[in-house]
Amino acid sequence: MGRIVLGMSVSLDGIAGSSNLDVPGESMAVHEAVLGWQFPLRSWQERQGMSGGEDTEESRLWAEDFSRWGAQVVGRRMFDFGNPHWGENPPFRVPVVVNTHRPEAPMEKLGGTTYIFVTGGIEESVRRARELAGDRDVLIAGGVQLARQALEAGLVDELSLHVAHVVLGHGERFFDAVATPLRLRPIRTVAGAGATHLSYDVLR
Amino acid sequence: MGRIVLGMSVSLDGIAGSSNLDVPGESMAVHEAVLGWQFPLRSWQERQGMSGGEDTEESRLWAEDFSRWGAQVVGRRMFDFGNPHWGENPPFRVPVVVNTHRPEAPMEKLGGTTYIFVTGGIEESVRRARELAGDRDVLIAGGVQLARQALEAGLVDELSLHVAHVVLGHGERFFDAVATPLRLRPIRTVAGAGATHLSYDVLR
Repeated sequence: MGRIVLGMSVSLDGIAGSSNLDVPGESMAVHEAVLGWQFPLRSWQERQGMSGGEDTEESRLWAEDFSRWGAQVVGRRMFDFGNPHWGENPPFRVPVVVNTHRPEAPMEKLGGTTYIFVTGGIEESVRRARELAGDRDVLIAGGVQLARQALEAGLVDELSLHVAHVVLGHGERFFDAVATPLRLRPIRTVAGAGATHLSYDVLR
Repeated sequence: MGRIVLGMSVSLDGIAGSSNLDVPGESMAVHEAVLGWQFPLRSWQERQGMSGGEDTEESRLWAEDFSRWGAQVVGRRMFDFGNPHWGENPPFRVPVVVNTHRPEAPMEKLGGTTYIFVTGGIEESVRRARELAGDRDVLIAGGVQLARQALEAGLVDELSLHVAHVVLGHGERFFDAVATPLRLRPIRTVAGAGATHLSYDVLR
């Protein structure tokens, strides 16, 4: 059975999102600061349907990681924020469980992405994603609130942090609402051009 | 002229100290969780006057780092907490500037450590340490409040974070009171047995 992996991009001071969604510019600035390390990667660009980018070790690692996911889980807020950008041929190319309070019919997109709306809470969303992923792993892709819920519920086997080379000073800190101590065993440490990639097994 | 380096040990969720100093057990638990990566290192043990420890690459890096410092700066709270443990032959072996409001005569200890009490604020403490260090670098060793003041005052050339393989959930987050955005350029990424060591140039 696949593993449940929580992947988050954060600044060095742990900021993963904007604390003020009423200021769209701020939200986008945080997004670019913590996720910008991906944009130059050839593998990332290929996923967006572009043909440029740098073919570095980091790009190959990104592709390797991405091919692990048999399904992804995202929160409602992240879905609403991302959906207009992801468009008709989204970069996931696997089933994506949207953890939400609002039931909705599945949405099939091009390239293998189907959005499936699950209303039974985080345990149910992860269980559903695990079924859909078969033998492959499940990525809990965010946002911040969903990621915290998954950690607090003890659902995460592996924590994968991408730590951008920047201190933001303001924003929503990923770990601020994580009150559960976790023992970790490092799996991989990769020094990238725009971020340091830290993966850990979460020990029970 | 030497560089000003800020060195901090933190948990993966950014906790560097106890938020409740009235509970001595909690303070010591955080201390051990975030600094425990040092204890098995031969180079660290040698500094404490012990003769055991593991001669790993991490131990050699620790020794290399330590030999850079021509002086250190510590805050008053860290000094009062540490002084009884550091004893008559403290592990610094260089002048240590104590940033404080309370004037006091210098204290000379064995092995090259002299405590010098500077009351003119963080700029003055760092200026004094820089003089004392000569061509060598200055380590701002903590605690959390002093480290933040130095960052906010723009005094730090290099940020050296030791990120222990643990999420604590509770405690004093180092970056919580750092409101100044910083652009960083990575210098070194080392995967250690108990912590990941991330060094950055702070870009102005």
